Amino acid sequence: MNMSLNRLRVAFLGPRASFSHQAAAESFGGTSADLIPHVSFADAFAAVQQQEADYAVIPFENSTNGSVVQTLDLLADRNDLYKDVTVCGEYYLTVHHCLLVHKGTYPSGWNGYDGSITKLYTHPQAWGQCELLLSQYFKGVERQDVSSTSKAAEIVSKETEERGAAVASRFAADYHGVDVLKENIEDRADNTTRFLILRNMRAERVAQPELEQLNVLGQDRSAAPTTHKTLISFAIDHSLPGALASALLIFKDHGLNLTSINTRPSLKRAWQYIFFVECERTPSDENNEAVVRALNDLQHVTEFRRDWGTWKDRLGASIDNADFAMA
Amino acid sequence: MNMSLNRLRVAFLGPRASFSHQAAAESFGGTSADLIPHVSFADAFAAVQQQEADYAVIPFENSTNGSVVQTLDLLADRNDLYKDVTVCGEYYLTVHHCLLVHKGTYPSGWNGYDGSITKLYTHPQAWGQCELLLSQYFKGVERQDVSSTSKAAEIVSKETEERGAAVASRFAADYHGVDVLKENIEDRADNTTRFLILRNMRAERVAQPELEQLNVLGQDRSAAPTTHKTLISFAIDHSLPGALASALLIFKDHGLNLTSINTRPSLKRAWQYIFFVECERTPSDENNEAVVRALNDLQHVTEFRRDWGTWKDRLGASIDNADFAMA
Repeated sequence: MNMSLNRLRVAFLGPRASFSHQAAAESFGGTSADLIPHVSFADAFAAVQQQEADYAVIPFENSTNGSVVQTLDLLADRNDLYKDVTVCGEYYLTVHHCLLVHKGTYPSGWNGYDGSITKLYTHPQAWGQCELLLSQYFKGVERQDVSSTSKAAEIVSKETEERGAAVASRFAADYHGVDVLKENIEDRADNTTRFLILRNMRAERVAQPELEQLNVLGQDRSAAPTTHKTLISFAIDHSLPGALASALLIFKDHGLNLTSINTRPSLKRAWQYIFFVECERTPSDENNEAVVRALNDLQHVTEFRRDWGTWKDRLGASIDNADFAMA
Repeated sequence: MNMSLNRLRVAFLGPRASFSHQAAAESFGGTSADLIPHVSFADAFAAVQQQEADYAVIPFENSTNGSVVQTLDLLADRNDLYKDVTVCGEYYLTVHHCLLVHKGTYPSGWNGYDGSITKLYTHPQAWGQCELLLSQYFKGVERQDVSSTSKAAEIVSKETEERGAAVASRFAADYHGVDVLKENIEDRADNTTRFLILRNMRAERVAQPELEQLNVLGQDRSAAPTTHKTLISFAIDHSLPGALASALLIFKDHGLNLTSINTRPSLKRAWQYIFFVECERTPSDENNEAVVRALNDLQHVTEFRRDWGTWKDRLGASIDNADFAMA
């Protein structure tokens, strides 16, 4: 792998060794992409819009916590900042937490653990996700909130005097060079985050070798029936009674199965919303134009509408690699 | 007003002098209700379920920040904890922030302000809502996050040495006895929070004088055309393609205009959602049974459904007092 200007650049939500980093690494695992941390959701969107990055991997929803509001607010794009950004794929990452300790501290592992840990570090959200184990084995142990699970692993990696432990991923353990004392300590085994993969619709690097490699990964699985997902945002004219129902009915009329609906305030008028509708279909000769026809019909009942793109459904797919619809 | 056991008890989300307290005070302004702070959303719901409170006033959505996820998660009621809780009204509170200072510190007011404030206190969310004024007049002044705007006002009320100021409501200023140095310092004049008013469907205190007084307030305005709103939650069978569109179409079929849709994870299966649909109608002989008929039809396409109640639309109404539908 050489540091060439032609390498793919993939933006993720930082810091390094975050769950977004892991999702980016696994999504683009078949390539020699450069994975680039971004401090905010807006920075990652801007990187794609300005073609500083070829792709961005952005959390969209979590099976336990629900939609990621920051992402919806960027997809609302109220100031037309991201007009060339499109969704070209998705990736499901199961969230596994581990108990991480300074390298070599507990050579006999969890079975030989002597109860000597005096401080725990993690992101505030992770405490609640591991409450069963923490309340059983670490009752009364001091808990220190930190800005990310990755940061928690980093703190433990640099520790020399205290006996601390971090709640973070195995990916973070590998990155920061710490030991996994106990893995899969999360309460819910099915806690999963869905990431959207963004790209710039004007980007011309699509034909380069790395991306072709990704496409091959996609084609390898094309024997299985593939569903395509599409994300469309719109605002309705609230003075028109029934406009929202009419808008949603259009999807049904064109054979597009609604799979998720989200809303955010339009911020133009109080109590006007931007709707985010995801729909899916099995591609066929009959319905390949369904999205185009639905968007056409939506003109009559919406104030604006935007097609964010179409990609292959990855739910239920192997989570080794995402692939990308070239719709 | 005497402290009688018969007085209405109204739960709000604490602490005292919070925006929820203000909403409760204004909603029940025509009564001699006891307003009781609750430390969490769940406590306020439980107070209504257990009939420790007759009503609860709970934030549901904000015109800028969107839906209140904590409230949706309680309305999801995944463990049937709140089966007698129902929605009987709503209240719109425009969020005005003021700059508050220790009593008597600046006798000549904002026009004579000499730039001597050295520290600002407020809830983290309020900084962003007052950025225009704060960045113009308080550039570089230390900012201290506190747990609520009410707490900020309280700190300033007890200050003796420092020159601090709080960003909080006039209601909090009155409660804590501090001066309003400058009012309406918010960036957006239309930032409004909608509260739901909850009661227990089994409560028998409905006929008492205080509530009748509230109803009179409602009837005073009955000359204006009144729209009724209804909140229904349901989960669909995701294995049934088109089930969500079918469920939403049922509202339209019965003349119920969809006005909001929210979703939360069901937590039963990953990627299954609980939907919260609000719909409205103008009551008439023809459609008075519309909600019942819609719920009946929903049985065919939903795994569960729940009618949270019907109340009078208060959007656009005078914000002096809410009133209550007796549906």
